Amino acid sequence: MTPPIPRRTTQSADVNKVAGSGKVWLVGAGPGDPELLTVRATRLLATADVVLHDDLVTPAVLDLARTQALLINVGKRCGRKSITQEQIHAMLIDLARRGFSVIRLQSGDPLLFGRAAEEIHALTAAGIEFEIVPGITAAFAAAAALRTSLTDRHISSSVVLSTGHHAADAQEAPGHPPTRVIYMPGRDLAPAAERLLAEGSPPSLPCVVVSRAGRSDQQIQRTTLAALPGLIPGPAPAILLAGEVFRESSSGDAPVESVNSRAFEPIATGPSL
Amino acid sequence: MTPPIPRRTTQSADVNKVAGSGKVWLVGAGPGDPELLTVRATRLLATADVVLHDDLVTPAVLDLARTQALLINVGKRCGRKSITQEQIHAMLIDLARRGFSVIRLQSGDPLLFGRAAEEIHALTAAGIEFEIVPGITAAFAAAAALRTSLTDRHISSSVVLSTGHHAADAQEAPGHPPTRVIYMPGRDLAPAAERLLAEGSPPSLPCVVVSRAGRSDQQIQRTTLAALPGLIPGPAPAILLAGEVFRESSSGDAPVESVNSRAFEPIATGPSL
Repeated sequence: MTPPIPRRTTQSADVNKVAGSGKVWLVGAGPGDPELLTVRATRLLATADVVLHDDLVTPAVLDLARTQALLINVGKRCGRKSITQEQIHAMLIDLARRGFSVIRLQSGDPLLFGRAAEEIHALTAAGIEFEIVPGITAAFAAAAALRTSLTDRHISSSVVLSTGHHAADAQEAPGHPPTRVIYMPGRDLAPAAERLLAEGSPPSLPCVVVSRAGRSDQQIQRTTLAALPGLIPGPAPAILLAGEVFRESSSGDAPVESVNSRAFEPIATGPSL
Repeated sequence: MTPPIPRRTTQSADVNKVAGSGKVWLVGAGPGDPELLTVRATRLLATADVVLHDDLVTPAVLDLARTQALLINVGKRCGRKSITQEQIHAMLIDLARRGFSVIRLQSGDPLLFGRAAEEIHALTAAGIEFEIVPGITAAFAAAAALRTSLTDRHISSSVVLSTGHHAADAQEAPGHPPTRVIYMPGRDLAPAAERLLAEGSPPSLPCVVVSRAGRSDQQIQRTTLAALPGLIPGPAPAILLAGEVFRESSSGDAPVESVNSRAFEPIATGPSL
């Protein structure tokens, strides 16, 4: 099956004249707030010809693409006909060979829990020039929303990032247990809770589910490991954080006003120093 | 001992009139390239009154602070008289109470392997308004420089972030072993190698030390776990990555030109779609 390359790319035979001059950028879109994109990602979006993006990339981020850019949703969950990973590879390679500047835009960071390994392999095999631009991954967006450090020299000195499908069995010897961050935990949190209990985590272990971290519709749900199976996560993307660092929540969550502010909030200028 | 508050902050008694209007931002400076700052961090730097920064924050990032801003190096390693963590807390609180907008700027992300937990506690106890702005942490900057995904559904499905001082003992059951990222591994890599071997990692495990990831003077050193003790890391900050995902390096490291480019590299515009 032919990948759904936009029709207009084939309108002229001249496109082959610039063969080899295209390039692919694998770019992290961060958690969804355009303010949390990197400066480099913002600038690339303002100039790229084509943006192939996941479902989870927010409209506010896509709005940063230049008006003439072609946006293609290649997300696995989009309602339309599903695009295979091999078709994504074919589109990236074909567009770059036609001389286009192409952004492969993924929520969070492109090199964590995505298909970047396969895309990098395909681009390398095809001899396509490419570059990686990191993004803020959900663990750090959630921690910022919770205003809680993922590590604390008195409580936790390591962090384990895993997914609901493949949770890492990790403990630290002889120090403190790590802070756990489980991406895509799914709607049913019982399996994740079972794994953590089986590894020796106490039933009182603080757990937090953050839905849509850093976005205007962010939801924070705090519980314990014992009560985790009964919790219904907020809308995707959600992330599960578990660890003693979340026990003291005296600092409180980030105020909603702050989280909601898409636009830059000017700093009140203090008296001159 | 009185914290070294800049003299000019005490020049007028009027400063107390704006008591309560100040605010502190704990901001991630990322790996050092200003292009890898978040848009929000860049905007905050352009308007803040005071920036308290670590030694590892690069001059190129500090250049983004507005001309009138007061920059204070509170790094532990700075040649000048050492500033204690308690003095940093006192400075943050005092400056915010005087009505200043204050950035506490840390390399990477503020909520990983820093002293943010203590700073958050102190600010909360003092009733100071504060906010967290995430940054790109070294693990992702290094992965981007290596053009290698930290996870790969066929090789590794989790990532363990730890420090040289407190390496996490992690294994995954029944899946693949995690990718390890060890921050601040120190000059002697033998202890880290011993821990990984003791945990059952094979002597052939690919290891990579990335010094100053994403900066113009970045250094990449590839070896195996068996040979790791003999490797002399490049200049700080360095980071050690170990995992099967680094075995295939066919995609190659990012070209030096790309890594070196501080300024934005314009995208060649392809033919119109």
